[in-house]
Amino acid sequence: MTKKRQEIYFDNSGTTQVIEPVADFAYQLMREEFGNPSAAYARGLKAEKLLAEARRRVAETLDVNPAEIFFTSGGTESDNLALRGVMQANRRRGKHLIVSAVEHPAVLNTAKALQDEGYEVDFLPVDANCQVDARNLQKLLRPDTVLVSVMLVNNEVGAVQPIAELAHVLKDAKSPALLHVDAVQGYGKMVVSAPKLGADLLSVSGHKFHAPKGTGFLYIRNGVHITPQLTGGGQEAGMRCGTENLPGICALGLAAKMAYDELDKRLDRVAEVRETLLNGLGDFPGWHLNSPEGALPNVVNISFEGVKSEVLLHMLEDEGLLVSAGSACAAKRDKLSHVLQAMGYDRRRIEGAIRFSFSYLNTVEEAERAAVIVKRQVNELREVLQPKRR
Amino acid sequence: MTKKRQEIYFDNSGTTQVIEPVADFAYQLMREEFGNPSAAYARGLKAEKLLAEARRRVAETLDVNPAEIFFTSGGTESDNLALRGVMQANRRRGKHLIVSAVEHPAVLNTAKALQDEGYEVDFLPVDANCQVDARNLQKLLRPDTVLVSVMLVNNEVGAVQPIAELAHVLKDAKSPALLHVDAVQGYGKMVVSAPKLGADLLSVSGHKFHAPKGTGFLYIRNGVHITPQLTGGGQEAGMRCGTENLPGICALGLAAKMAYDELDKRLDRVAEVRETLLNGLGDFPGWHLNSPEGALPNVVNISFEGVKSEVLLHMLEDEGLLVSAGSACAAKRDKLSHVLQAMGYDRRRIEGAIRFSFSYLNTVEEAERAAVIVKRQVNELREVLQPKRR
Repeated sequence: MTKKRQEIYFDNSGTTQVIEPVADFAYQLMREEFGNPSAAYARGLKAEKLLAEARRRVAETLDVNPAEIFFTSGGTESDNLALRGVMQANRRRGKHLIVSAVEHPAVLNTAKALQDEGYEVDFLPVDANCQVDARNLQKLLRPDTVLVSVMLVNNEVGAVQPIAELAHVLKDAKSPALLHVDAVQGYGKMVVSAPKLGADLLSVSGHKFHAPKGTGFLYIRNGVHITPQLTGGGQEAGMRCGTENLPGICALGLAAKMAYDELDKRLDRVAEVRETLLNGLGDFPGWHLNSPEGALPNVVNISFEGVKSEVLLHMLEDEGLLVSAGSACAAKRDKLSHVLQAMGYDRRRIEGAIRFSFSYLNTVEEAERAAVIVKRQVNELREVLQPKRR
Repeated sequence: MTKKRQEIYFDNSGTTQVIEPVADFAYQLMREEFGNPSAAYARGLKAEKLLAEARRRVAETLDVNPAEIFFTSGGTESDNLALRGVMQANRRRGKHLIVSAVEHPAVLNTAKALQDEGYEVDFLPVDANCQVDARNLQKLLRPDTVLVSVMLVNNEVGAVQPIAELAHVLKDAKSPALLHVDAVQGYGKMVVSAPKLGADLLSVSGHKFHAPKGTGFLYIRNGVHITPQLTGGGQEAGMRCGTENLPGICALGLAAKMAYDELDKRLDRVAEVRETLLNGLGDFPGWHLNSPEGALPNVVNISFEGVKSEVLLHMLEDEGLLVSAGSACAAKRDKLSHVLQAMGYDRRRIEGAIRFSFSYLNTVEEAERAAVIVKRQVNELREVLQPKRR
């Protein structure tokens, strides 16, 4: 019990706790407003109104029209719908797709699956700051390029990509290529205006900003054609069939509204938590910040010399500090981070990398304690390892 | 308030209320056990254990192995994954698909989408009892038939298809064709043993048996190859990527266990409710049962002479009785039921069809009241319409 009370959850880029008003709303919809939005009676109409409200709430945060929001089961489905849907709908125009080298597996592996189906994929490299260079996009762009997919915020290091610049490259080149932005890690944690970014499609996942798992949406700019991937009863204007997950969708709508109503306050808190952790590490020897300058403060990636992250991870957990090595999706696979590799780090640095990811629910006091725990455990680990080196 | 208290919800084939212990479980997972099953620390392992428990619970009800259960976002996704996944994985073997004419749009429209992509689809007719004839399957079967998809229980009339017979036809013909069963309306309401049915794939949706919307699963028999439709972080053994909807999945697992632990009790209740409604209508003039003999008691489809269902629907709603005309998915589209058409009914009978669908939460007293309401409203409607006829 003591341990549970003291848990410091610094893995908010992996998943977040559903906050109380959001979980309460989902519960209310499961128990009371359980109508099917497709039903013709008042209970169905009530459900439809709730669905419309969620759509409006989400659209407002993105500066877009509610009719451009399509609810899905999460970020992975949104990314798949964007990539597969756009490539399939534009087969006659071309088969070329460009994605960055540091995308989430939901984009990267989907691009590879499309490659296996005969589509041609080019990968945009990043520099040591995990930044895509707009000039590289210019070079890779072809007349038959159908889609460019670059994430807004990297899930492993927090790097923010220059999306608006990429959109300008497409515009200047008069390219008909569409721009898809995986905003799973950025949405709810920074201003995300689809028009200002120049995004034609944009993916979001609910469980990264305190909404329930199994929820998400894809923004599809009006006029963009995609091939639906789930056919059936005609829901979501036929773009994504299946009875709407009303409790999840409405919970997501509320979580989105709350995130943007309180954005400044949340940002301040997260920045403070980050600062406190980094200051706490201070002149502790042998740690290196892998997150670049200008990264979203929610994610801090750090390597500790001489220790392997998977070992450190468990030692930190013993003291109640929950962090991850790389992303959650790669946590159990024994492979090197493709993001840190793309940034040019060597094997040892990558093997010692730990991701701390924050939420506004975290406190400065937690960050202070975390710094103490990390230093103590890294020291212990280094002492244990020392004799072996001699 | 009075009206709300008196609501008789007879649209349980459209969607169901999430029952309290199931909603409570989902809530607990949103608030407390919110870990990502992919995370390497104890909170993640706990989440993984909960996921494994849900999988085991579901597998038990179907007489299959937990490793053969793949969680999805619902029935529509399960159906799409089955049809698209199997057809794509077997492209070299053939392009022929057979589906029944009375399938849910999630199967029917997916078959049509595959047809547009170059696959060949044949539609199995049904007789006046909404029954597929095994001999017709025999006739349609080709050497290049890859998949046969027939639903277990029809969503509009409750007809139960002879799935095991169809499986025998495939076996006797030594056909390599796989058998997919959309069991969305049958699961949780009757014994569904995948091996006994001879199903190679079987789709289920959570919100039809008091689990939350946005949940479901596809059973894929060990040895059956399908092409994943959602690629990404490798979840669900790579067959269905995306962070698992743990609250939804675990809630579904509990709802499944409860449905099968209490199956006999629930069946008795539903049969009693059905009997009471039909007896209540008794010798009332001009009503016709569209549901065939042997149909699942949960669904009763009735036509009333001289009235149009959409008008009657609203009058019933005014008295607190919620039913539907045809299926929820077709409720708002002004078209004739493809199921009743396939059964050979004429336009007037189809236009007057109402679906009453029950759950074990309904009571005999509700059925008694419903019969009185229906008779009164049909009478009123007929009186209003009478002068026009003269």
